[in-house]
Amino acid sequence: MPDPKENLQMEKIVSLCKRRGFIFQSSEIYGGINGFWDYGPLGAELKRNVKELWWNAMTRQRDDVAGLEATIIMSPQIWKASGHVDTFADMMRECSISNKRVRTDHVEPQSGTVISFAGVYRRSENTRRYNRLIEEFSPSLTTSEAIETLFEKEISDDEAKELNPELIEKFQDDPAKRALMLSLQKRDIVSTDLSKHILFKRFCILLQPGKPIESARKLAVSFYEALGFQDSILLGEQQWKVENSIDFHPETGGELRAEVPFNLMFKTHYGPIESDENIAYLRPETAQAIFAQFKNVMETSRQKVPFGIAQVGKAFRNEVTPRNFTFRSREFEQMELEFFIKPDEVIEAISGNVASAADVSSRVCENADNPRSDEARLPQPNWGWEAWHKYWVEERVRFYEGIGLSRETLGFHHQTPAELAHYARACTDILFKFPFSKKDADGNVAGDELEGIAARSDFDLSQHARFSGKPMGVFDDELRAAWAKLPKEKQDELWKRYHDNRKNYLLKSGVEAEPAQKQATDDANGLAKGQYIPHVIEPSAGVDRLILALIANAYTEVTKTDDKGKSETTVVMKFHPRVAPVKVGVMPLLKNKPELVKKALAVRDLLRPWMNVFYDEAGSIGRRYARQDEAGTPFCVTIDFDTLGEKPELLDTVTIRYRDDGRQERLKISELLDFLLSKIR
Amino acid sequence: MPDPKENLQMEKIVSLCKRRGFIFQSSEIYGGINGFWDYGPLGAELKRNVKELWWNAMTRQRDDVAGLEATIIMSPQIWKASGHVDTFADMMRECSISNKRVRTDHVEPQSGTVISFAGVYRRSENTRRYNRLIEEFSPSLTTSEAIETLFEKEISDDEAKELNPELIEKFQDDPAKRALMLSLQKRDIVSTDLSKHILFKRFCILLQPGKPIESARKLAVSFYEALGFQDSILLGEQQWKVENSIDFHPETGGELRAEVPFNLMFKTHYGPIESDENIAYLRPETAQAIFAQFKNVMETSRQKVPFGIAQVGKAFRNEVTPRNFTFRSREFEQMELEFFIKPDEVIEAISGNVASAADVSSRVCENADNPRSDEARLPQPNWGWEAWHKYWVEERVRFYEGIGLSRETLGFHHQTPAELAHYARACTDILFKFPFSKKDADGNVAGDELEGIAARSDFDLSQHARFSGKPMGVFDDELRAAWAKLPKEKQDELWKRYHDNRKNYLLKSGVEAEPAQKQATDDANGLAKGQYIPHVIEPSAGVDRLILALIANAYTEVTKTDDKGKSETTVVMKFHPRVAPVKVGVMPLLKNKPELVKKALAVRDLLRPWMNVFYDEAGSIGRRYARQDEAGTPFCVTIDFDTLGEKPELLDTVTIRYRDDGRQERLKISELLDFLLSKIR
Repeated sequence: MPDPKENLQMEKIVSLCKRRGFIFQSSEIYGGINGFWDYGPLGAELKRNVKELWWNAMTRQRDDVAGLEATIIMSPQIWKASGHVDTFADMMRECSISNKRVRTDHVEPQSGTVISFAGVYRRSENTRRYNRLIEEFSPSLTTSEAIETLFEKEISDDEAKELNPELIEKFQDDPAKRALMLSLQKRDIVSTDLSKHILFKRFCILLQPGKPIESARKLAVSFYEALGFQDSILLGEQQWKVENSIDFHPETGGELRAEVPFNLMFKTHYGPIESDENIAYLRPETAQAIFAQFKNVMETSRQKVPFGIAQVGKAFRNEVTPRNFTFRSREFEQMELEFFIKPDEVIEAISGNVASAADVSSRVCENADNPRSDEARLPQPNWGWEAWHKYWVEERVRFYEGIGLSRETLGFHHQTPAELAHYARACTDILFKFPFSKKDADGNVAGDELEGIAARSDFDLSQHARFSGKPMGVFDDELRAAWAKLPKEKQDELWKRYHDNRKNYLLKSGVEAEPAQKQATDDANGLAKGQYIPHVIEPSAGVDRLILALIANAYTEVTKTDDKGKSETTVVMKFHPRVAPVKVGVMPLLKNKPELVKKALAVRDLLRPWMNVFYDEAGSIGRRYARQDEAGTPFCVTIDFDTLGEKPELLDTVTIRYRDDGRQERLKISELLDFLLSKIR
Repeated sequence: MPDPKENLQMEKIVSLCKRRGFIFQSSEIYGGINGFWDYGPLGAELKRNVKELWWNAMTRQRDDVAGLEATIIMSPQIWKASGHVDTFADMMRECSISNKRVRTDHVEPQSGTVISFAGVYRRSENTRRYNRLIEEFSPSLTTSEAIETLFEKEISDDEAKELNPELIEKFQDDPAKRALMLSLQKRDIVSTDLSKHILFKRFCILLQPGKPIESARKLAVSFYEALGFQDSILLGEQQWKVENSIDFHPETGGELRAEVPFNLMFKTHYGPIESDENIAYLRPETAQAIFAQFKNVMETSRQKVPFGIAQVGKAFRNEVTPRNFTFRSREFEQMELEFFIKPDEVIEAISGNVASAADVSSRVCENADNPRSDEARLPQPNWGWEAWHKYWVEERVRFYEGIGLSRETLGFHHQTPAELAHYARACTDILFKFPFSKKDADGNVAGDELEGIAARSDFDLSQHARFSGKPMGVFDDELRAAWAKLPKEKQDELWKRYHDNRKNYLLKSGVEAEPAQKQATDDANGLAKGQYIPHVIEPSAGVDRLILALIANAYTEVTKTDDKGKSETTVVMKFHPRVAPVKVGVMPLLKNKPELVKKALAVRDLLRPWMNVFYDEAGSIGRRYARQDEAGTPFCVTIDFDTLGEKPELLDTVTIRYRDDGRQERLKISELLDFLLSKIR
């Protein structure tokens, strides 16, 4: 559990986001809609900057990545192939009292007193002789046997038939009702319809801390009343203590039913007729469009493996319990790269070996003792999936560093074999230490996921090949030439490894043994012809999580005490200039001096074609600085009388003021644009 | 109808889009999904450029517009307030044969021969005496009366009851079947179940041109067979001619049923329970989020009316008949600005008058004879809605000109009072002359809509105020001060106009007379306190339509004949450099000269931080130029031996080659970046 101080930190962040227009609740005037968040003016700029930086780094700055912008609604077949229709589900439990649902893994352990009732018995004029009896014994009436005992008479079926054979038959499968009914019939209350008098339906609740047991009884009475049992007697009351139980709904306290899977895809229908044949889903990830369009993109962009396809776009998951502000929301944005690589067997055939992990680490991984030039980090022809995986983890960390998230703020989680999907070779999560991130027993914070970088083998392309019937393999001249020159035993060894991997995939995907064997043999035979299905490394990042991380990372409170001892705390959002929503605030010292205003507008117009400028002339200069500090604007430029030449040597210079330390410098207007560009790019 | 040449032009464009990776069919490997299109590598860049230019022009380059990025799924209340739940529907007709649907206004008039049948009669062993009779008279058997006549016997109910009272009762409400049945019973074929023998269900079809009538009869036979009537006789055949009929399905020829409304919003459910209480819609436009967040944005961005809120994002409409490539698709992207202005009454109170239309036109509207400086076009305090509307139409046209769509390629449609929504004051559509755009009788092409610029009064904010119960008015100090100084008769006049407008809105929105009167009075009384509900001008553009316009506009075929008289036609995509997906191709003259390659890579790396560069070393330089022409790259830079100093005076110069005319020039590498930036920005 995050401690209260960390909750306070989140509250401050949520409040700032609303107050300054970073993030609003969606549809706020209508009471909001749970799990949906809008980005206000500053948030929209921040998000645009982050997406633009990612797109530039991933596609425009590289020769080996092409972009894609696919639709949110795609053929439902895609989600069958990807496995989402069948398995993209969270295990969920339902409150047995309110029917509210909650994700099994989101139930925090709770301790306290549980109170339960077995059912309810409705008082009636007709059965009033027995109302008192039942009332008296109600706590022990937990089962049909208890009721039979109460009426001190086991009645055999033969005896019962003499009384009222029709009713006996009606309750043949309900021993509790039958027992009570027979007892009452025996006592000449034959006309009573007992199915209306008794209900065995468990009511079980964890008492909220500090509440008396009577409050649970009242809830039980309301619960049974809602089922039509007014003026009734609660049956079978029990109480017991639980410690760290995850069997009660966190809000209602109601006992949770057994877990069931709940598919997270939003469902809709396309075309004019709403039928099962035109169900469509809102994509739960952007990745699948990349696999589906793999061939089209490869062919039109003249790329060869290794190469990647990048996409930024909205995705939707109908989370059962959205939470932690924008961290887990139902509509969000992803930035995903699918980087296609040669299988290790192909690398080995062409290069003679596959780069060892140690070799790759020393090339790719950078740290203070071991800085790496861009050239040193260039991908090598003998890189197999491990090398590419390490490379992309490192690339992505460098990206985060480049926008202000230092390595100290990040964490890593290397998925264990038990966590990995059967087709995945590895997955490294890059974490950020959010204010709500949990501490372990030693007080350490691992963080929560910003991005996962997965080595997904050839699973995705293979699935789409199987489901669409369209080939997803590529042809590689280099492989064909190299293969022909390999010694027979090397060919056999690589053939067998490739074959076994393919067969393993096919069998795990439910293909029968015989066709799997045939297909794997065909696939492995393809190697000699230069054919293979590419593997993929997938760096998959969440935009909204990253925005939240940037906001949490930037949030800084500064307390200043003035000469009179009065202290004031203000917020400074220390965004990296690359992501800051506004790059520079431009301000005339005074609003009512036309020559200052005119000059300030000229500076604004000089800078504006190149960056987002906020022009502000309202209020004292100190208040204007403070407003820009809160917006995270890294620089402010002030036009004063010196700019106009009051001190001739300062003519056409401005004051530049730094957000992070309040430092001020004098700079020539002619040098301003280059200075700012060097900082914000 | 577009003529065949124009269809050919569209075919060429669609083919180029797929071949070069501008636009693919979504989910193509699964047979596609109608109305959804993906943007490939070049298309994604083109689209990003357009959106970025719009965002820059509309928000970053202006002080008076703030950005927003809201969710696609919002509270369903928003769509009740906006009217979409009740009225966002197309009238649709259904084919009576295939049940396929088509938009009423998308049915082209057709002429030809109609053939219809009244129903069908199944031959049977039991009734074989009558099979021949029915076969002979089948054309005239169009009604139950005809059948009664055929059997030449009206049977009274009394007579019938003697025969088989049970069957009579069964067919009490079906005179046709009863008549036939009675006749047959009379002839001692009492055991026949006639409900299985006759079906009166009209089959009516417009014969496809050139098809024989027999083909329609075959279709009718299949139609009735599908309803369970094998080996049957068609009843009541009729034929007639129609001219320009819109009563038959354009594809199937089947008669269309009466029109019904079809809501175009995609529907889904949010939260874990799929019930009517958590229906949500995919937004059919981005505008409503702007209205819903109006107050939040205004307060956090320190804006005052007049100011705007801009948003770019996906929207969804479940079009009945998506068509014209990406022009009318089901998932698309919008760029919308809601620009909030003071009502004319407020302008008049503050400024003493409202700018006249003539005054505004001469300020705002630009043409060759009347160019206007930026300063001349600056908005004025006395602008009312007409002025702002003209201003935004002109701003938007200038935007299109700035990305390569000259005024000649555009058209305008000023909506007539009959076309306008009741709350709208004016709406001007900016059209583009697409290859599929229709010609009028004189052969003129008006074009199809790129953008609509609507003056929507205070309708939207008023609706959200009514539906959410949250005030949407603003407070304006200037108005309060000005109002106090107005003469009483002026106050009364403005009060009455504002009051009447408000009352008119309330009554048209279904508010009862008495509360409408009270509310309008309250609203008009607000003026004296400086309160009013802003009006809005809405420039609303479709991204995908604009992309298609840019592609159609850029598409140019160039035919060259070489020395040997062999001619070759290539495609040159003449995009404006601002929108071109790739800004510059960088090419070493030869691939196998390391010093050329090294230098070319250095040039690539020099330019790449500032623009999208395509590095290409494969194939002859002519083929590489042709590839860039097809991609629409405006400039190519070639590194040759002179660059390396073979002619010393040309050291560190490159050849720059222009896409549009093939012209080549020599330029210093040191000047290259500034030269290109001046062209692409």
